[in-house]
Amino acid sequence: MARIVMKFGGTSMAGTERIRRVANLVRAQAAGGNEVAVVVSAMAGETDRLVNFCREANPLYDPAEYDVVVSSGEQVTAGLLALTLQAMGCKARSWLGWQVPIKTFSAHANARIDDFPADTLIESMQAGQIVVIPGFQGISEDGRVSTMGRGGSDTSAVAVAAAVNADRCDIYTDVDGVYTTDPRIVAKARKQKYVTFEEMLELASVGAKVLQTRSVSLAMKRNVRLQVLSSFVDDDAPSADTLPGTMIVSEEEMDEILKEAKMERQTVTGIALDKNEARVVLTRVPDKPGAVAEIFIPLGEAGINVDMIIQNVGRDKGETDVTFTVPQAELARAQALLEDRKDKIGFNRIITDANVAKVSVVGMGMKSHAGVASTMFKALADRGINVQAISTSEIKISVLIDADETELAVRVLHSTYGLDDTSAAA
Amino acid sequence: MARIVMKFGGTSMAGTERIRRVANLVRAQAAGGNEVAVVVSAMAGETDRLVNFCREANPLYDPAEYDVVVSSGEQVTAGLLALTLQAMGCKARSWLGWQVPIKTFSAHANARIDDFPADTLIESMQAGQIVVIPGFQGISEDGRVSTMGRGGSDTSAVAVAAAVNADRCDIYTDVDGVYTTDPRIVAKARKQKYVTFEEMLELASVGAKVLQTRSVSLAMKRNVRLQVLSSFVDDDAPSADTLPGTMIVSEEEMDEILKEAKMERQTVTGIALDKNEARVVLTRVPDKPGAVAEIFIPLGEAGINVDMIIQNVGRDKGETDVTFTVPQAELARAQALLEDRKDKIGFNRIITDANVAKVSVVGMGMKSHAGVASTMFKALADRGINVQAISTSEIKISVLIDADETELAVRVLHSTYGLDDTSAAA
Repeated sequence: MARIVMKFGGTSMAGTERIRRVANLVRAQAAGGNEVAVVVSAMAGETDRLVNFCREANPLYDPAEYDVVVSSGEQVTAGLLALTLQAMGCKARSWLGWQVPIKTFSAHANARIDDFPADTLIESMQAGQIVVIPGFQGISEDGRVSTMGRGGSDTSAVAVAAAVNADRCDIYTDVDGVYTTDPRIVAKARKQKYVTFEEMLELASVGAKVLQTRSVSLAMKRNVRLQVLSSFVDDDAPSADTLPGTMIVSEEEMDEILKEAKMERQTVTGIALDKNEARVVLTRVPDKPGAVAEIFIPLGEAGINVDMIIQNVGRDKGETDVTFTVPQAELARAQALLEDRKDKIGFNRIITDANVAKVSVVGMGMKSHAGVASTMFKALADRGINVQAISTSEIKISVLIDADETELAVRVLHSTYGLDDTSAAA
Repeated sequence: MARIVMKFGGTSMAGTERIRRVANLVRAQAAGGNEVAVVVSAMAGETDRLVNFCREANPLYDPAEYDVVVSSGEQVTAGLLALTLQAMGCKARSWLGWQVPIKTFSAHANARIDDFPADTLIESMQAGQIVVIPGFQGISEDGRVSTMGRGGSDTSAVAVAAAVNADRCDIYTDVDGVYTTDPRIVAKARKQKYVTFEEMLELASVGAKVLQTRSVSLAMKRNVRLQVLSSFVDDDAPSADTLPGTMIVSEEEMDEILKEAKMERQTVTGIALDKNEARVVLTRVPDKPGAVAEIFIPLGEAGINVDMIIQNVGRDKGETDVTFTVPQAELARAQALLEDRKDKIGFNRIITDANVAKVSVVGMGMKSHAGVASTMFKALADRGINVQAISTSEIKISVLIDADETELAVRVLHSTYGLDDTSAAA
């Protein structure tokens, strides 16, 4: 017997038939003698519909009222899943955010969980009730409905798992696990049995949108065993124990798993790509102390997230070119802001390019293996792919390249680091 | 300055543009220096959509979960109206049923209001805030969401008006008042300036669906001044004080109004029709004590609402035919139940007819005027309309007739009792 939290995303909850499929998966876990809590998203498309209503009503909307409107989507699916489970003969009931209560603090529309007294939920589960919790919502300090930002249901699920001290938090989604890279680009991508929290965080931050980043941080902090798996499986074999998903584990657990399997840690475990960045070059910036601060402090104050930064040696003495990336959605705002400060910063021209992509290699093994970067640059250079910028973390190397070369770069790197699924080869 | 409750139905709340129109009406009242509470229905069609989801999920649905699902429709419109009012520069906020709290008792899905502590709402209104309350919902004794049955938003509005001690409760709907009869049938129907609570209750119970019956009873009991008016008016003249709606008043207030206007009380003030009844005849029932009880007690226990009852003299001595009506939706169930008890009751045959209509004349003046019934029967007989059953109350006479003759009967009676709008005559 175990205590399990199961989370289902919007695609899994889209309509009566799919909710019935979800209920079958839940029932199978409960029938196996497990205590089960379920966290659900709104039906696919519903949150967008509600957000649009808010925008139409008031473009500068009050986040507290926005929360009242958008939280209704999860309220509906939570009630419907409880009804469906009851129709199957299970004991089930919905627990809205304010009923648990899932107490949040900080801003509306982007609330964070403060306190999560779970005694009532635990008692209900111990009494054999399947507890169904709408994701994404809580109750704010002033007793109003709060929501946790788009994708917040993942975070709700991890918070429930931490609060009820669950043995596992299973995130059911429309993909069946975490792959070595996007399988739509690389047919030989392999599904990973295990990924560490740190790797998952880096993958999420560079565009592999399997889990909300905040949910992974919370799972890491609270040491919740996370599993990603697909809800679109045969109804005949709906046992999560046998489903080949991806388990997200701590570094220590990963070491033990590798030790037991007598395997070496792989240097690189995933290749991620992100086409939402744009490149900005400021030419002939004065090469003197404080010049770069004149560029990046105003961008930071405007809430524009600058990612990669390179300073090239300029053509003329005492000058330099500064290259960096910003999200494409912020490019126009960043450009206007910099033009306003042209004299103060003292640059010559702004050159922008939205036709770029960031490709990243991620792996815990990079901590202990040298030469990952040089292997990467050589592989790309061999194919004539030009690297426009580089950024690194302890377990990640990202390069900015021409967007048209993204697929080629990902395939080359996937093969270079030995990630291709050879078993599937013809 | 007055304290006003405004209630808007689903047609008025259907979409951003209509909500903006509603917000204009609300703003006009607030701008006039009034304290305003607004009660809203879900967008037209939304509650049906949610009810269907519940039925699909679980045909024998748990009313507590049903309430979680269907209450979301009003939650959305309440948030959206608050947002729209804020966009117009008004101070506004939504108050969900559990936040007020509107405490209910009795069954889920058909809850009744128990306690309504309104201090917080009154303070907010006195501080210049427009309070927006989702209709139809409250919080049950066990701390869960409850709803008050279809059309419950009217009742919510009256309950809010009673709790905050409002000067008036304005029910905005898609008709612009209470007419002498259905204007789609009788072009000369007149809108009434005043109707008494008692008349409104009789009209509602016989099929004039302007207001939920329970809301009228509550208004009568708590002495809330109710006004029915249309939200579909020019944005240029959105002051409720000048809108020609129908005011629903106590008998005493009506007497004063008539006295002041030096007018006589009209004998009949409205003609209602109801096509949702079906006629059942049991032939050759033993004419002995207790026989009729054998018929109606089981129907009552099965929750089948029997309306008109007549006992005819049978063809043979010691036997009688019993005629009565039930709602068409219950006809099959009633028939099956009676067939099961055929031997016990001792009847010969069941004859049923769903092609019938109930036409009713209603008026407080009937209390003091004799001859209303005989006028009715003569007018119908003159047109060859056969009366199949009769029932009466102190201020109402209903007859059951062939459904095909409904429109003719309503027109004849409308003219007979002097209700035709002569000013509109060509």
